[in-house]
Amino acid sequence: MDLARSPLARPFPDLPGIAGVTCRVANARYKDWDRADLTFVELAEGTSVAGLFTKSACASTEVEMGRKQVPASGARALIVNAGNSNAFTGYRGREAIEQIVGQVSAHLGCEPAQVFVSSTGVIGVPLPKDKACAGVEAALKSEPASWEAATHAIGTTDTFPKAATTSALVGGKTVTLVGIIKGSGMIAPDMATMLGYIFTDAAVESQFLQELLARANAETFSCITVDGDTSTSDTVLAFATGKAGGTPLASYDDDGADAFAAALTDLCRQLAQLVVRDGEGASKFIEIAVTGAASNESAHRIGLAIANSPLVKTAIAGGDANWGRIVMAVGKAGEPADRDRLSIGFGGTWAAKDGQPLPDYDEAPVAEYLKGDEVRIEIDLGLGSGRATVWTCDLTHGYIDINADYRS
Amino acid sequence: MDLARSPLARPFPDLPGIAGVTCRVANARYKDWDRADLTFVELAEGTSVAGLFTKSACASTEVEMGRKQVPASGARALIVNAGNSNAFTGYRGREAIEQIVGQVSAHLGCEPAQVFVSSTGVIGVPLPKDKACAGVEAALKSEPASWEAATHAIGTTDTFPKAATTSALVGGKTVTLVGIIKGSGMIAPDMATMLGYIFTDAAVESQFLQELLARANAETFSCITVDGDTSTSDTVLAFATGKAGGTPLASYDDDGADAFAAALTDLCRQLAQLVVRDGEGASKFIEIAVTGAASNESAHRIGLAIANSPLVKTAIAGGDANWGRIVMAVGKAGEPADRDRLSIGFGGTWAAKDGQPLPDYDEAPVAEYLKGDEVRIEIDLGLGSGRATVWTCDLTHGYIDINADYRS
Repeated sequence: MDLARSPLARPFPDLPGIAGVTCRVANARYKDWDRADLTFVELAEGTSVAGLFTKSACASTEVEMGRKQVPASGARALIVNAGNSNAFTGYRGREAIEQIVGQVSAHLGCEPAQVFVSSTGVIGVPLPKDKACAGVEAALKSEPASWEAATHAIGTTDTFPKAATTSALVGGKTVTLVGIIKGSGMIAPDMATMLGYIFTDAAVESQFLQELLARANAETFSCITVDGDTSTSDTVLAFATGKAGGTPLASYDDDGADAFAAALTDLCRQLAQLVVRDGEGASKFIEIAVTGAASNESAHRIGLAIANSPLVKTAIAGGDANWGRIVMAVGKAGEPADRDRLSIGFGGTWAAKDGQPLPDYDEAPVAEYLKGDEVRIEIDLGLGSGRATVWTCDLTHGYIDINADYRS
Repeated sequence: MDLARSPLARPFPDLPGIAGVTCRVANARYKDWDRADLTFVELAEGTSVAGLFTKSACASTEVEMGRKQVPASGARALIVNAGNSNAFTGYRGREAIEQIVGQVSAHLGCEPAQVFVSSTGVIGVPLPKDKACAGVEAALKSEPASWEAATHAIGTTDTFPKAATTSALVGGKTVTLVGIIKGSGMIAPDMATMLGYIFTDAAVESQFLQELLARANAETFSCITVDGDTSTSDTVLAFATGKAGGTPLASYDDDGADAFAAALTDLCRQLAQLVVRDGEGASKFIEIAVTGAASNESAHRIGLAIANSPLVKTAIAGGDANWGRIVMAVGKAGEPADRDRLSIGFGGTWAAKDGQPLPDYDEAPVAEYLKGDEVRIEIDLGLGSGRATVWTCDLTHGYIDINADYRS
């Protein structure tokens, strides 16, 4: 089916090249379509890598392999298949991936463990070996492709290509980060989200890169949800080619480590929010800010309970300042909450304070605010200093259209 | 808004009277409507009572009071307000309920603690004291009403009145049970569900009735979900008038206790399934049978993860045998699962066994089966002997219509 571009889409940004990173794409025809669906990213020798993967108990072969690969001694290549997730496909799925890894490692003269593979699309159909083999051969030989072409090639139900860039000053040198990501449904990352790839010319040791990625993930990808459904293939990989030079960052004590960590988190937040902006059927981008919780973890869980509530999401879709549904979601979160200390607001206007509606609450300006396509909901628990911010989208007829008809 | 009657509705059953129980209804005009919305049930002296309430941290005053009331020395009255849940209304909400309890206890000459009150409807609007006062006065004086009239009066977005009956042989006497229930959205009972009331002429001690109700709940109300959103007002109360005579049941060792327990569970299952049949926007009734799990509790959580997955629910709505989404939901449940032992079937036909699609799986008959309005999904984990069955409905445009526009 042809999906309309999300009304919350952002234009594709101007992205700089990253020394040591070359993208190539090909059409493996995983589906009957006329577009690139296989992406090959070649990474310079000495590239360090970190990765986060879904905690799903039914993860794909690709995720299982990735979990064993990181933190690794290095990465030389990334292959992304779009249109088939190869999840729940048993030994046939494993054979297809082993074949791809064999082709790429032979081509580059590297270890098989230095080749990372991701797949995304329908679950339960073994990745066809013949199509994968021909697609990889074509990609290995093709001309280098732009970031935009690669971002298109990793997408499935995405309605716009999603990427971001930032930079940091590390040891007197400017390092550059670029991230590309895909995802719009089955988004409730339990650890990472869908398929996201971050490339930087910074020099960072793998173990430290893994630590930085995990920290950035906790306040970015782990704070978004579209539908509360966690994919079997969620993967975020970060590759650092080191081509900017300098001594590799190995701990927070190193000069520039804080700046790099902040840049990495900023990049992850941009990418995570872009996924929400392409949430299936989304018409509004929703930020949920929780304060006054018993702990940050508690605030995070309460935020996600609200963000995953179909009643809250449909209310926002309808422009209805129905804060009673937010009370409901706080109540069901299973976290410390005291109804009589709870306050709820929209875009800076409190609707309820300390467990009851404000007597002079005027709903008219709030209803006007909810007509916009960016909505912020504030919840104060009145219990402690725990806080968290999560992002989601509304639930509309578009989500039903896409998922009752599309075999994703 | 006028909601069309659910296509899964069942006709209202013929219900016997229960000695010691008299229903009366009135129109308190909690909303601008021309229907009864206040129900008063008078219970004979000596009626024992058991109750289960939502675990929500933001429960209503009514729920807070009920939690303290059961198991009680007895019950003499039940008042149900429909159209206003009185949740999150602070001291003003409490005052309205105290007033109602005062009116009813004065009328019956009973203790205030013997009067039970429930309210259902919009959250965050204090129950208007003047309307409640006039409504209660009218109800106290009105003619006795039928079960059907009372069931209509407790409803809100319900599209059909839901009730059930059963009986059991206890100590040589036939005892009768009748239950009435309301609910169609915000259904993910954490302990009980929406508002359900069970009446029996059996003689049962309160403490034992509480134990029996809790057990029945675990395999009935706790096994249904419409949208994963847990109400702030969920309540199930069971009243036993003892008018059938005999020594009150006090333990499982008593003659007829097993028969009564089975009848109570049967009644609760009927009522719970009726709620699912009135799930907002429902077009299909879905039974999810989980076997081979590590434990019964684990099977229950996996069943609910599937039942609450919007991607599974939209696939069933679309008649799509997309079992990959079921794999996803199993994987995200956070319970023991081994992808390579997992099997999934529809209505007795296995689609996937031991972690991969069956080579000779023919989707055509399954697609035909999914066109029906009752769908059974089978999941075998292949790990142990844990099992559970849960019930839900599909997710359709109807749910969005109802909840993006209706201030519930």
